[in-house]
Amino acid sequence: MKVQLALSPQKKDWTQGNIALEFIDTALRGCAQVMFQNNPVTGIFFFAAIFIGAYAEHNPAVAWGCLLGTVVSTLTGYLVMPDYKTLRAGLYGYNGCLVGATIPTFLITTHAVWGCIVLGGIVSVIASACIADVLKTWKVAPLTAPFVFTSWIILLGSYAFSQLPGIGLPAPLLPHQINVHDIPVILGGHSYLPDIFDGVSEVFLLSNILCGILFLIGLAIESLWAAVFALIGSALAIVTATFLGAETHSIAMGMYSFCAVLTAIALGSAFNKPTWPVLIYTIIGVVFTVVTQGALNTLLEPLGIPTLTMPFVLVTWLFLIPKKLF
Amino acid sequence: MKVQLALSPQKKDWTQGNIALEFIDTALRGCAQVMFQNNPVTGIFFFAAIFIGAYAEHNPAVAWGCLLGTVVSTLTGYLVMPDYKTLRAGLYGYNGCLVGATIPTFLITTHAVWGCIVLGGIVSVIASACIADVLKTWKVAPLTAPFVFTSWIILLGSYAFSQLPGIGLPAPLLPHQINVHDIPVILGGHSYLPDIFDGVSEVFLLSNILCGILFLIGLAIESLWAAVFALIGSALAIVTATFLGAETHSIAMGMYSFCAVLTAIALGSAFNKPTWPVLIYTIIGVVFTVVTQGALNTLLEPLGIPTLTMPFVLVTWLFLIPKKLF
Amino acid sequence: MKVQLALSPQKKDWTQGNIALEFIDTALRGCAQVMFQNNPVTGIFFFAAIFIGAYAEHNPAVAWGCLLGTVVSTLTGYLVMPDYKTLRAGLYGYNGCLVGATIPTFLITTHAVWGCIVLGGIVSVIASACIADVLKTWKVAPLTAPFVFTSWIILLGSYAFSQLPGIGLPAPLLPHQINVHDIPVILGGHSYLPDIFDGVSEVFLLSNILCGILFLIGLAIESLWAAVFALIGSALAIVTATFLGAETHSIAMGMYSFCAVLTAIALGSAFNKPTWPVLIYTIIGVVFTVVTQGALNTLLEPLGIPTLTMPFVLVTWLFLIPKKLF
Repeated sequence: MKVQLALSPQKKDWTQGNIALEFIDTALRGCAQVMFQNNPVTGIFFFAAIFIGAYAEHNPAVAWGCLLGTVVSTLTGYLVMPDYKTLRAGLYGYNGCLVGATIPTFLITTHAVWGCIVLGGIVSVIASACIADVLKTWKVAPLTAPFVFTSWIILLGSYAFSQLPGIGLPAPLLPHQINVHDIPVILGGHSYLPDIFDGVSEVFLLSNILCGILFLIGLAIESLWAAVFALIGSALAIVTATFLGAETHSIAMGMYSFCAVLTAIALGSAFNKPTWPVLIYTIIGVVFTVVTQGALNTLLEPLGIPTLTMPFVLVTWLFLIPKKLF
Repeated sequence: MKVQLALSPQKKDWTQGNIALEFIDTALRGCAQVMFQNNPVTGIFFFAAIFIGAYAEHNPAVAWGCLLGTVVSTLTGYLVMPDYKTLRAGLYGYNGCLVGATIPTFLITTHAVWGCIVLGGIVSVIASACIADVLKTWKVAPLTAPFVFTSWIILLGSYAFSQLPGIGLPAPLLPHQINVHDIPVILGGHSYLPDIFDGVSEVFLLSNILCGILFLIGLAIESLWAAVFALIGSALAIVTATFLGAETHSIAMGMYSFCAVLTAIALGSAFNKPTWPVLIYTIIGVVFTVVTQGALNTLLEPLGIPTLTMPFVLVTWLFLIPKKLF
Repeated sequence: MKVQLALSPQKKDWTQGNIALEFIDTALRGCAQVMFQNNPVTGIFFFAAIFIGAYAEHNPAVAWGCLLGTVVSTLTGYLVMPDYKTLRAGLYGYNGCLVGATIPTFLITTHAVWGCIVLGGIVSVIASACIADVLKTWKVAPLTAPFVFTSWIILLGSYAFSQLPGIGLPAPLLPHQINVHDIPVILGGHSYLPDIFDGVSEVFLLSNILCGILFLIGLAIESLWAAVFALIGSALAIVTATFLGAETHSIAMGMYSFCAVLTAIALGSAFNKPTWPVLIYTIIGVVFTVVTQGALNTLLEPLGIPTLTMPFVLVTWLFLIPKKLF
């Protein structure tokens, strides 16, 4: 990621070699890297949003799991230390951060589930190193694939283990075509503006306007372009999903937006410099992310697990690998 | 592909630098590349077959979609221009050509579906460049994988979007073992000859003897060996599927042949020179393609989407990557 | 694999250039390579265990299929001869060996099924060469992926072909969460010791204490560490699966152990030298293999096919690719 240039020489390291402060700084950057930012202040805003959102949904375990996952994966990163610069930029933390937020969203937090968050945090680091090694052949980043892989394994496993009881998982069903009559009519007065912010907060599996605003402030602190592209991505996803006739409630929850937000930041600002051709390329990528979101919803329906951020990962790899296009 | 040697110096370019003629020439080569041929005349025969077949099945949208997909993807190729020689050989056109023929076969052509054909045509070029970049590590071609990937996303997505209504998609079902009693007895007088031609035309999702003959003529114009291997592949697939006890109606429709046809052309003539060991290798590949066709039918049954040409892609990659075998 | 160092110069080749003896020697090594050993005597113990186990379960076709698969794939290896040293170490034999044992475990042995064992033996060699070529980019071995791929294709295909009738395949079902009440209470007097040996024998799809002991002796002949790690892996898997609340009968059968056994041997002794960090890494790998086993059970439930050794393959690749961790 561009953010691997982390500690630019002119910035003085505020931790001044204090290992405890350095660890906190690294963990905060890990949280911020979920949206490609290498900035501990961004991480503070993100954690604030997560705690507010989780308590608002009366599921504090999501926030504490998120914190635990970030700490375990950052700690694992320090212990195996494959690459100090990568580690220090938070790039071994963001997958564990997401694993820790995801598991308590879908499973009841038994002792075994807390154990799986710790195991998931450790495995997410190994998966990060593995997927990064595989992908460096084509010079692309693992994105959130290590998180998705690790979480899918644990969520799929929950069906086989009685000590990993599901609570928020969709019931496994054979796909059936959405019926026009299934789609509630949007009232004339419906405002899409709040949905745009819900779409940003849904990156962390929350549907909360205030959280969305906090995430955007966190983004803007490090990169204004990132915040702009997050908004563009969320809004464009709502328009596309509405045009294609997706289920209205899902659109309003941000379910068609959160991957589009990540695709927009990744293609528009994190891995490319914003230019006109890049903007057009990003728009095509965002529109295709919405179609892919619908496709992966169908694909996983018989398995009873959520897509997580896989639509973003797939489309962003697809659009980043052919570098000679630009 | 061998056909990347496209414009050999001794052949005079009939388009003589006229950009409109060159575009038509490139688009026709794109259509011909579905069966690995780099020849605009082959493309004319293929398009003729597609229009005849589509109108015969009272679904002209298949032909017009095919034309639209070819034009959009060829145009996209010209705009992003990653590699002129590859582009000119039609190698950015054949995936869009197949996407455009596939979507109207399985979805009702609403405005959103026509939009998806255009989007699919564009994405097929990005997917081609991406998959080609990934696969050049092992020196194999993307084959029709970009087409399959793009079409699967749109067809899976159709279950989630009311403006992409399915019409020809198989209903999602849990697999059940085919029963001997499900298999209608083939009458003594049944001739397999027409089925062989149906198998060739099924490459373009048509089941039509005349189309099959036109495709074979188109092949023979550029490569007699390609036409011979297409016939061998189709016939051998029918024999294998009958021996294994596949559903007779599917065999007669060419559903076990179309991938075998492509495997036979690819292994027998497009990527290898025809010799006795290559013939044996191709026969094993064709037989295994039939088993893989049955396997992927089962794999996709709960998802309600067709295999498209994935059995061919998988088996051909499997048989082409280990180059040191020869 | 480390065992490619096969015929170390100091060891006199007992076959003394006799081609028949050499072929038998190679085939026996092929069987031994299922558990990473390059030793014909290990192969004799393994084959003995397989024949005893198969006859004890009144399904001799498993043993004969295993023998046939080993012979066909070894013969194919000699015919295409991509790499003599690799071939001679049995590395083109172990996948065919497993294909041959697997098919008759799940399908009734019609003529077509015997044909598929021969075809599977041949294809397993091509798949070995293909997957080895792909994976050498990241310097890892194909493990048993060629076996899993080939067998999955044939088992999935069995649903489509009446001449490949299933008998032991799990019925395709949508996943449902295991209920605490589904889990039979383990009686106080239940001894886990026999289950540990069952877990080892389940690598060859047998659940038999005597077979497990024979496999361990075979391992110990070539590598005491391999036998020790096999036991550790099996025992740790039983503890983990019990803690997570897996179905007790499956645990006792060794269904959660067989992949863990292979992961333990691979990570602990075959591809790493046993040290304390490696031991901890192996323990994490074994625990995650058990979770992955549960996950893949769920993933394949709608398809009605078994996981085979895929959980081992996935986790071992995941843990071996990031080499810089050590």
